[in-house]
Amino acid sequence: MMQIGIDSFAAAISDPATGLTLRPVERMQHLLEEIELADKIGLDVFGIGEHHRAEFLDSAPAVILAAAAARTKNIRLTSAVTVLSAADPVRVFQEFATLDLISHGRAEIVAGRGSFVESYPLFGLRLEDYDELFAEKLDLLLAIREHTRVRWSGKHRAPLTGQAVYPRPLQDPLPIWVGVGGTPSSFIRAGTLGLPLMVAIIGGEPKRFRPLIDAYREAGRRAGHPAEKLTVGLPRHRLSRRHHRASRRRLLSGIRAHLHRDRQGTWLAADDPGTVRRGTRAHRRAAHRRCRNGCGENTV
Amino acid sequence: MMQIGIDSFAAAISDPATGLTLRPVERMQHLLEEIELADKIGLDVFGIGEHHRAEFLDSAPAVILAAAAARTKNIRLTSAVTVLSAADPVRVFQEFATLDLISHGRAEIVAGRGSFVESYPLFGLRLEDYDELFAEKLDLLLAIREHTRVRWSGKHRAPLTGQAVYPRPLQDPLPIWVGVGGTPSSFIRAGTLGLPLMVAIIGGEPKRFRPLIDAYREAGRRAGHPAEKLTVGLPRHRLSRRHHRASRRRLLSGIRAHLHRDRQGTWLAADDPGTVRRGTRAHRRAAHRRCRNGCGENTV
Repeated sequence: MMQIGIDSFAAAISDPATGLTLRPVERMQHLLEEIELADKIGLDVFGIGEHHRAEFLDSAPAVILAAAAARTKNIRLTSAVTVLSAADPVRVFQEFATLDLISHGRAEIVAGRGSFVESYPLFGLRLEDYDELFAEKLDLLLAIREHTRVRWSGKHRAPLTGQAVYPRPLQDPLPIWVGVGGTPSSFIRAGTLGLPLMVAIIGGEPKRFRPLIDAYREAGRRAGHPAEKLTVGLPRHRLSRRHHRASRRRLLSGIRAHLHRDRQGTWLAADDPGTVRRGTRAHRRAAHRRCRNGCGENTV
Repeated sequence: MMQIGIDSFAAAISDPATGLTLRPVERMQHLLEEIELADKIGLDVFGIGEHHRAEFLDSAPAVILAAAAARTKNIRLTSAVTVLSAADPVRVFQEFATLDLISHGRAEIVAGRGSFVESYPLFGLRLEDYDELFAEKLDLLLAIREHTRVRWSGKHRAPLTGQAVYPRPLQDPLPIWVGVGGTPSSFIRAGTLGLPLMVAIIGGEPKRFRPLIDAYREAGRRAGHPAEKLTVGLPRHRLSRRHHRASRRRLLSGIRAHLHRDRQGTWLAADDPGTVRRGTRAHRRAAHRRCRNGCGENTV
């Protein structure tokens, strides 16, 4: 099954009609309208990034996604990515379990190390612990997903000695993806854990990820995980002829709706690479393609 | 000006029609319907508590409030209370600033120490630091509200050396109340800081809070804060004849709507003391009354 979606970083942008930078409160309304429209046109997933800098409004993605959940019916709602290294996995699980209840089981977490570094000093962490923090916190996040009462200890977070984490989500298990950039060990970790993989190809040639995805699948196979658990999601900047026809049609009709809105100057300007862009090249840049259950083999 | 609202702890409750305990996903939907109705009937404020135990669904109040924001127009949305001692003030500010953007400036924080203790071991904190944690974190929360770039250091949280906290809220300043129980020093701290005071009279006789509220006002006066900043909010279980007629009428019409919904067996059962209860005594237990700008003098 292939799923198609959009990721946004809720970037501070200019109004295409006036050229003026939108006020944050307006940008937030536009973002929620975008998600509502993405739901109406039948896209499968909407993702919100996490950043802690002036250019973006998405430091609390679960809060934005909850507002989106109240305005949508079918679209799945995910972080893209949750900077797990800098977060408390207990709070992350609580927030997305709450989102899951609000959205009737449409929440997902994509957990990553983050591609910006500003969250480390902000939350009192050392950049040199970058990877260790992530490995440890992912371990805790998975433990919380597995058991309501958690026994866990690590280096970077107070131990849990049987404390319970509530609420429990509607989905069991709550989907947790590992968001990866280009680090080989991250691909192997995700495979070994049997977790679905979200590959952040914000720039660069998708082809170069092929050996890394092979390494992910091989690590998963060795750890004894069935092939259907080893799902790969990856952003694409072009639609290829190989893409499933219905998905392609649906996506293109969605883009027409986007462009229509855009001509009115109301919303949908450029967010960032990998996000929907307005203008004539919109169909090429339009959305992230998520490829599940192995179809990535054909396209990478 | 008097404001009237409702606080909820999103408790796991039984369906009045069937007697069966509602599934969390249904309870969450009912809660969001309650807030939507509270907005429609013109109540001023809806508050969501924060707990980390099986009986409640409100471990992430800002996430619930964001969903409510998307479904409401005018009602103000607040935590009641945010257990600040166990939280990171940076995250709390980010979440409520995001909520403020989503809700077009309707977010408020009521920060407190919490009346349950389960959050301390869950987040690796020592109960004996109960008050010190709160004082320090409130100080940081106020610093973040005051300045985008923050210089701060304390005992219980990594220092900030000029890092910036985003997004910034629409309201400037974002309202921050201090939620207090019966501890005299808490009243005096709120007064000294010139912060509005939310008195949690979940049980007990409101009269006994009179000397504490006097101490709050006196502390505020001594610290040089104008009287209009020293606002008091307090829950009440009865409406007195002194209450403003329009507010009284509005509240009672709201309760009629509640009872109507209740007879259909669809929602609105008992949450907890201090929250709307169904049945014939609903009008007496109906809502929290918030009394701003000194009208508390008449009623305490």
